[in-house]
Amino acid sequence: MRYVDQDLLSIQEARVLIEKSTDAQNSLNYYSQKHIDVVLEKIVNEMKKCYSDWIILNHEATQIGKINDEVELAKELFQFFDMYQDDTYIGSCIDEDTKQVMKQGVPAGGIIAMIPPVNTVLNVMYAIFCAVKTGNTITLIPHQRNVKNIGVIVNKLNEIAQDNGFPSSAILYMQNVSEEGIQELVTYSSNRIILNIGCTSYMNDICMKNKISYYASVGQSPVFIEQTANITETVKQIVESRSYNNGILPSAEQFVVVEECIVNKVKEELKNNGAYFMTSDEEKKLMDYIQPENNFNEIGYMGKSPEDLANSAGFKVPKDTKVLVSSQKYIYDENEYVNEIFAPVLIVYEEPNWLTSCQKCIELLESNRRGHTLAIHSNDAFVIKEFISKKPVGRIVVNAPASFASLGIHSEITKSFFVGGGTTGFGTIIKNIIPEDFVYYREVGYGTTPTETKTVTSNENQKDIDELSEALLKFLNKLNK
Amino acid sequence: MRYVDQDLLSIQEARVLIEKSTDAQNSLNYYSQKHIDVVLEKIVNEMKKCYSDWIILNHEATQIGKINDEVELAKELFQFFDMYQDDTYIGSCIDEDTKQVMKQGVPAGGIIAMIPPVNTVLNVMYAIFCAVKTGNTITLIPHQRNVKNIGVIVNKLNEIAQDNGFPSSAILYMQNVSEEGIQELVTYSSNRIILNIGCTSYMNDICMKNKISYYASVGQSPVFIEQTANITETVKQIVESRSYNNGILPSAEQFVVVEECIVNKVKEELKNNGAYFMTSDEEKKLMDYIQPENNFNEIGYMGKSPEDLANSAGFKVPKDTKVLVSSQKYIYDENEYVNEIFAPVLIVYEEPNWLTSCQKCIELLESNRRGHTLAIHSNDAFVIKEFISKKPVGRIVVNAPASFASLGIHSEITKSFFVGGGTTGFGTIIKNIIPEDFVYYREVGYGTTPTETKTVTSNENQKDIDELSEALLKFLNKLNK
Repeated sequence: MRYVDQDLLSIQEARVLIEKSTDAQNSLNYYSQKHIDVVLEKIVNEMKKCYSDWIILNHEATQIGKINDEVELAKELFQFFDMYQDDTYIGSCIDEDTKQVMKQGVPAGGIIAMIPPVNTVLNVMYAIFCAVKTGNTITLIPHQRNVKNIGVIVNKLNEIAQDNGFPSSAILYMQNVSEEGIQELVTYSSNRIILNIGCTSYMNDICMKNKISYYASVGQSPVFIEQTANITETVKQIVESRSYNNGILPSAEQFVVVEECIVNKVKEELKNNGAYFMTSDEEKKLMDYIQPENNFNEIGYMGKSPEDLANSAGFKVPKDTKVLVSSQKYIYDENEYVNEIFAPVLIVYEEPNWLTSCQKCIELLESNRRGHTLAIHSNDAFVIKEFISKKPVGRIVVNAPASFASLGIHSEITKSFFVGGGTTGFGTIIKNIIPEDFVYYREVGYGTTPTETKTVTSNENQKDIDELSEALLKFLNKLNK
Repeated sequence: MRYVDQDLLSIQEARVLIEKSTDAQNSLNYYSQKHIDVVLEKIVNEMKKCYSDWIILNHEATQIGKINDEVELAKELFQFFDMYQDDTYIGSCIDEDTKQVMKQGVPAGGIIAMIPPVNTVLNVMYAIFCAVKTGNTITLIPHQRNVKNIGVIVNKLNEIAQDNGFPSSAILYMQNVSEEGIQELVTYSSNRIILNIGCTSYMNDICMKNKISYYASVGQSPVFIEQTANITETVKQIVESRSYNNGILPSAEQFVVVEECIVNKVKEELKNNGAYFMTSDEEKKLMDYIQPENNFNEIGYMGKSPEDLANSAGFKVPKDTKVLVSSQKYIYDENEYVNEIFAPVLIVYEEPNWLTSCQKCIELLESNRRGHTLAIHSNDAFVIKEFISKKPVGRIVVNAPASFASLGIHSEITKSFFVGGGTTGFGTIIKNIIPEDFVYYREVGYGTTPTETKTVTSNENQKDIDELSEALLKFLNKLNK
């Protein structure tokens, strides 16, 4: 029997994936939106049938997050699907007057998606939805702990796609995951888009020459509580947002910046809402356990409940604790709490006034550049406006839970499960990522010389107006009866 | 006196440029669109005053293109400016009802622009226009032959910007150009966008990690003449488009694919329009002179007239020759005519029918992947539609000169002087590049819970309709009098 090292096995697999997805993309390029939508409907139906099983299976393997929260969130995700499902991206846009094709929607050319160990089922479902809807193949790169479960989802959905006329390898995943294999895939694949969902180390370590690179992530949102805020409501929202699915939602609050004059009230409310303030000894123990600078190597702590976190770190917290809180004065690089923490942990800073708070938020965003979203709770229109205009982030959430609002749940922000992280310096996309970001439009120009332009003569004009008037009068009279 | 090697000098200059442009961007981030527009108007006025001098100066130095053509094209460019000048990109978009900020336009964060030796003055003016309009600093990297002339333009415009309140280094250029210096600039600059205008070798040789990379280029457009085309008009347009400014316009036709049954008529018309068909000996001589695979190292031949080209290559052509033509049967890699040629040279292929022509165009686009635009001349709606739906290009020009139409001159294509080359595999932008591509929008989400949604009661509804009816009736009666 031949023995092949793991890295070479991974490279070999990458080469096979490249060939398969190139073939699939070459045929998908000629599919109509109508045909695609038929396949997509079957895929979405299967997702709706199986998602809770997948979430449970995944939770068994990784122990990350809370099953119920993820199931509830999946229902929101399906509402996004319903919203985008009828949109047309692929094919000709026809001018109604001239019957000419004005532009042509075209699949961007295949997606390689790097999937993190958090919110795995939701990320996989949304990525596949975006890919299929826009006629793109997708090759998923799972975290090593998720390979088996992602395999279950991909195999099932690819089978359905194939049964309904899709090419045989439109939805793929990598089984032997290694950095060497990923580099091979990214370098030689004809796929055009690299969709990195919070696998930050890959952004630094994998060279992505001449690819379109999208980066979305959990991020570490600062939230500012200004003195005019409704403190009771604010704190309730923050704790709910940060404890949901045990702290791994995109844009979940990590840093709470509070004006000095209301800090006692805020802390009291935090306690009322199930926050546990750690002693400095406990804070140290927690960081020794988490080691957040080793993110994605050490995923053991991710998405754990406060109780489990405390137990593993070696201290006790009350049973109904919702978030662990560390109170801090300054930001300094050696403090591990400034790293991105994928768990229900909050860090509270107090500041003399809104101006220094503004500065603090910018520092927190720029310290290790993982934040792409900022939240503010205030009823002072001027302060809100200043925050909106000055912060280096892709989105601002006002008087709402940062995580849900940044996904567009009960907010005006574009509905998406991929919160673009371009302001962190990674990737080319700053806004929320939606299906449209996976197509391009081929523009069509017809010869028009200045003299050819048709101008309606004033006679014709008058005729049009007369006809319009008559029709409107008829309609209005009917309405007034 | 200290002696410093050229590459180190270039790296040193890059570091100074990085510092200057970072400082400038940090202040520009807080400028309002109103303030920007005041500065922009002065800059555009200066451009309108000086452009023909700049073009003449540049022509003296490089001998590329035709002065008159470039001056005429500049006038079109100024029309683009007039069109975009009043648009608002930077600042708050306010919801009229709620008076809340819904999104905030923000400068993308500085531009590094690589400028080719062709159409230099036009490229520089459009790049600076886009940058200033959107509150971005711009650092221009000239071709070595253009350093002095770009210096004249940049110094003048930066002075005006500064006099009108812009930071002191918003418009910069590199004087000691070397690949090492460019790599330093691209790697360590806080500038977010790399705008590469057809400096293709940089796309391969410079590593652009975590930057937003835009690529626009001249490209080498195939044009297909189908048997139902108006041959006289078609050939006139092609020759005009390819000979304009001596063949260096973005998207200018390079390959002419003709249906067999009309090839004699096309060749005859080409001759009538000033085309010179080279002998195979002359074809070889021309390539020996041009050496197109050494592009941008050997710029000597670029934008030269057919007569000058022939003279330098060692053969004679009639004085009024507008394009040199090579008739060819097959595409093969060793044939140097498949390279991007920045001169008034056409290659004619004949094909049995439109289907094989379609295939030929795809091969030409994919052979060395420099083409991003395709033109078709036909009156067969079905064939046109097939071409639009199947070709791997960013834009299709129908029955019009490819160069002008792809810039949006007398066509419906987005008006721009930078024709996005994303379909060549370089850069993330496929469409035409406009000022909007240099800003991002920060979305704002306000808390809205489902119960809060205001629904108009049916009573209120009826009242609205009544009021509307009344107003409309009044208006219509007035109209009909």
